[in-house]
Amino acid sequence: MKRPWSGQVEKPSEDQIPAHDPKNPLCPGATRPNGTANPNYESTFVFTNDFPALLEDVPSPPESEDPLFQAGPARGTCRVMCFHPRSDVTLPVMSVAEITTVINKWVSELRELGEKYTWVQIFENKGAIMGCSNPHPHCQIWSSSFLPNEPRMKEIHQKEYFSKHGTPMLMDYVNKELNKKERLIYTNDDWVVLVPYWAVWPYETMILPRRHIQRMTDMKESEKSSLADAVKKLTTKYDNLFQSSFPYSMGWHGAPTGSYLSSDNSHWVFHGCYFPPLLRSATVKKFMVGYEMLAQSQRDLTPEQAAVKLRDLPTVHYKQESC
Amino acid sequence: MKRPWSGQVEKPSEDQIPAHDPKNPLCPGATRPNGTANPNYESTFVFTNDFPALLEDVPSPPESEDPLFQAGPARGTCRVMCFHPRSDVTLPVMSVAEITTVINKWVSELRELGEKYTWVQIFENKGAIMGCSNPHPHCQIWSSSFLPNEPRMKEIHQKEYFSKHGTPMLMDYVNKELNKKERLIYTNDDWVVLVPYWAVWPYETMILPRRHIQRMTDMKESEKSSLADAVKKLTTKYDNLFQSSFPYSMGWHGAPTGSYLSSDNSHWVFHGCYFPPLLRSATVKKFMVGYEMLAQSQRDLTPEQAAVKLRDLPTVHYKQESC
Ligand SMILES: O=P(O)(O)O[C@H]1O[C@H](CO)[C@@H](O)[C@H](O)[C@H]1O
Ligand SMILES: O=P(O)(O)O[C@H]1O[C@H](CO)[C@@H](O)[C@H](O)[C@H]1O
Repeated sequence: MKRPWSGQVEKPSEDQIPAHDPKNPLCPGATRPNGTANPNYESTFVFTNDFPALLEDVPSPPESEDPLFQAGPARGTCRVMCFHPRSDVTLPVMSVAEITTVINKWVSELRELGEKYTWVQIFENKGAIMGCSNPHPHCQIWSSSFLPNEPRMKEIHQKEYFSKHGTPMLMDYVNKELNKKERLIYTNDDWVVLVPYWAVWPYETMILPRRHIQRMTDMKESEKSSLADAVKKLTTKYDNLFQSSFPYSMGWHGAPTGSYLSSDNSHWVFHGCYFPPLLRSATVKKFMVGYEMLAQSQRDLTPEQAAVKLRDLPTVHYKQESC
Repeated sequence: MKRPWSGQVEKPSEDQIPAHDPKNPLCPGATRPNGTANPNYESTFVFTNDFPALLEDVPSPPESEDPLFQAGPARGTCRVMCFHPRSDVTLPVMSVAEITTVINKWVSELRELGEKYTWVQIFENKGAIMGCSNPHPHCQIWSSSFLPNEPRMKEIHQKEYFSKHGTPMLMDYVNKELNKKERLIYTNDDWVVLVPYWAVWPYETMILPRRHIQRMTDMKESEKSSLADAVKKLTTKYDNLFQSSFPYSMGWHGAPTGSYLSSDNSHWVFHGCYFPPLLRSATVKKFMVGYEMLAQSQRDLTPEQAAVKLRDLPTVHYKQESC
């Protein structure tokens, strides 16, 4: 962190986003690239991505007996979900009630898509620096016939821990963090927001439940609004850190679906992961490059230092201070 | 690849770099942040990083019996190596003889540092988009008391394959690719440049030997100059792809050193890995974000498509065409 920085600087995130732009394909009433017009939606709105990375109907690759050349079919569907009819809002400035509506929609999408698909990845790329090409507040939902690498590793390691210790790893973990208090950022009755011990991004965080919840669909009503509160508080602290709209990629992980719906998933704990790219300021990011790609990621500040910084920031958004 | 792109666009790489800038701490004769003056070096030049990420003398973290909170000491040293006295050159425009000098220096650094350290990571971050903050042609050498994650996985999986098949995995792999010819980019008498079957970055490549070489220090003299030829050809094709100085992170992997020097490393094959960020043009990169971070990386073009593109490009640099 003491190195002078004379490298790449990002453009600050745009502040002047119009509330409504009839040419923006995510806005209510706008026409999308495939020619259909969006409804004049008033809260959330979900549609199938016009340029999906996964398709339902694709041929299987030829079978191979060579252990070094193994490929399998990847079937799926990609949806886009708008959080709000207005383009000039983001989760931290939305109300807890509005965020709860978003969470309810996530739950119903997971319920519907999970019947057919093994994995339903709900994720948000926020900010141009995270490859987001549309400022309208939205997330994506990619569902697949297979368990992708990251959740596959989590399936393996949580299962291993559970069979060894008889308790879910992430419940043991969150309870230990609640005792240690070194990496906590925010807690409410149902949720714990922290910088994980193993964080690689400077301001990486997790949202974990206090109660053993396996999947998003298992939340009680009260847990949905307290999760909305946790999301609002965390993203508000993020925005307050550099007094700018804080970019990140985030997503939810829980027990797989599809054929897993009928198996025992006691080892799984539902949680959210936030991976923000910034390091020094609103315009200087952490470059995960040479050494990180070829050897191992290395931190420029400790998880505990990041946690103190985020913990000490106000939970009122810098743009809403007057309220 | 058919998606219209209205997202973040990078600054094109700078074309007007002065051959010599007395204020640039990497230039011959310049004074570095720690007050020492560089010699007036005429080929390569190596020094210890003034802001090292690893130090030789650090306290060990306290021992912990908790399986969820395990930390170990990380000792090491970080060096910087300038490739050339001039700031306005890059590897593709340097001569094969000059690149051979660079390779010889890599070999002697690995030999010296490998006596003490388990892992010596030689890597180059090229271009501002890859976090490189100084245009002077250089790489870094980070040596560590431990085997970092990436080579640790390669150690495990190459060993597993070797004990199962009795042959080194990457030698079997390169021979199969030489037969299939689908992903080859360039070959010479000693080296094979290809897009690996498992590539995640759009134009990711590898340099592999035709002969079983375990470590960079095992190369014959003729293999050093043919490696210089392969490096020059690959990086020239890269620059020719978008007619610009092509950014990447690259590095060398081979059998570990330190205490591994006295063990059997027959399962290891020396190779180079190139990870370039660009996708569509000199200014639009592949964003490894939401789905990639939370689920699995997904390709916008196939390894075979990338290989055809790179294979078909000229091996003469677009700036040196008149020669
Ligand atoms: O050492 P440098 O060039 O200052 O720093 C660069 O390379 C390092 C090693 O890959 C990274 O950790 C830094 O994020 C990057 O900016
Ligand atoms: O689907 P989008 O928003 O066009 O694309 C963005 O998210 C995808 C999923 O993380 C990435 O693969 C793309 O690189 C990124 O630009």
